[in-house]
Amino acid sequence: MADTKPSLHTSMSPALLHLYDAAQATVVIIDVLRATSTIATALYNGARYIIPVDSVAKCIELGRQINCITAGERDGRIAEGLLHGNSPLEYTREFIEGKILVLTTTNGTRLLHMALDKGAREIITGSFANLTAVSNYLINQTNNIILACAAWKDRVNIEDLLFAGALVERVKEHFSISCDASHIAQTLYKKAAHDMYGFIKSNNASHYNRLMNYGFEKDIRYCLEPDLANVLPIYENGKLCVY
Amino acid sequence: MADTKPSLHTSMSPALLHLYDAAQATVVIIDVLRATSTIATALYNGARYIIPVDSVAKCIELGRQINCITAGERDGRIAEGLLHGNSPLEYTREFIEGKILVLTTTNGTRLLHMALDKGAREIITGSFANLTAVSNYLINQTNNIILACAAWKDRVNIEDLLFAGALVERVKEHFSISCDASHIAQTLYKKAAHDMYGFIKSNNASHYNRLMNYGFEKDIRYCLEPDLANVLPIYENGKLCVY
Repeated sequence: MADTKPSLHTSMSPALLHLYDAAQATVVIIDVLRATSTIATALYNGARYIIPVDSVAKCIELGRQINCITAGERDGRIAEGLLHGNSPLEYTREFIEGKILVLTTTNGTRLLHMALDKGAREIITGSFANLTAVSNYLINQTNNIILACAAWKDRVNIEDLLFAGALVERVKEHFSISCDASHIAQTLYKKAAHDMYGFIKSNNASHYNRLMNYGFEKDIRYCLEPDLANVLPIYENGKLCVY
Repeated sequence: MADTKPSLHTSMSPALLHLYDAAQATVVIIDVLRATSTIATALYNGARYIIPVDSVAKCIELGRQINCITAGERDGRIAEGLLHGNSPLEYTREFIEGKILVLTTTNGTRLLHMALDKGAREIITGSFANLTAVSNYLINQTNNIILACAAWKDRVNIEDLLFAGALVERVKEHFSISCDASHIAQTLYKKAAHDMYGFIKSNNASHYNRLMNYGFEKDIRYCLEPDLANVLPIYENGKLCVY
């Protein structure tokens, strides 16, 4: 039985993604603080679709060409030349419903484009905001799975690995998992699950500190709550739409 | 006070080493299963010194030039053309005392040469076999520290991260640690410390399975025991010697 199951791997950093065969896999882009939380939230609140772009320049250019919201951050703050940032709390239904969002972020949208370049068979995005939607989708997959953490400028981070671990914990029976990184993620998640905010705070998580310095405590708390925006964003023809 | 402490980072894979500034750091090469366990053991048992080389061909060539033991593995087994493998249990006092060991391994010696190429200020090697020697050395450092895991062909592994975590747990008061990877390692270690063999077995660690398939259970148990070969190997002028 075991070898008929598809495989599941966790890539802890974009700099490790090349180790896994994306061409045969559904790649789950994970950027908990905050890109993939924002993506789920905007779509949940009725955005028509999201165009993830890998540079601020492209974001600005698209903003000139089509009627859309241009948004993004670099180093955790609204990028120069853009009107909106990467806080999921900005994307209320009142603000985003029926609109197109063009988004660029330091790590998450960059990783999505790396996965594209590697010929990923399918790309979805995940974060605690849509934990159940993502795990339900995965357990019905026949593709192999790569849980791809966006990390922070290629450095492994706690929050993305926690979410990878939450997924492993929910879907592990359905996959063959010969991947130490996935087991490490699961162990970390089980340790933290009862109080994730407390866990990342007590572990002095680097991106937690960065965002706290900018006054984003509410964002962090939102991004660690399960299923607040429980839709499945899937990437097709340059756009993230609800599956 | 806090900012006067040197920094400590954990690189979970050779593919992440470039993210850290080796030129300002003491780099601890970590390859628990089994290179750095073997290095500690051979030196503890009286080897004159060890020449780590990054290819089987160089190992064979040195074997022709000097009176030495040539040893190494590829993919967990003795490499073709070499006389000895990478099992620490081979390097008894009777066998290795007074001799020079030339060693090449899939991950550990390769990583040591990467650290050299990156201009590491100082290189030492660590594993559970010399946990106390390494941690005592580190707490007296003024250099920054990089705990560099050898991993398995760049894929993060459990056992190297466990040892990094054991070091973090012992030395953390002496360093400024803004590094999620170090906190993840520490969490993993604290979870596993009471029964490391059981932990890596139950987590289906990939390299555990590889070595078990080759009949190396004794090696694994040896490599997870603290302080069985408690010397500090330091790299100078092409050689690993006891500090």
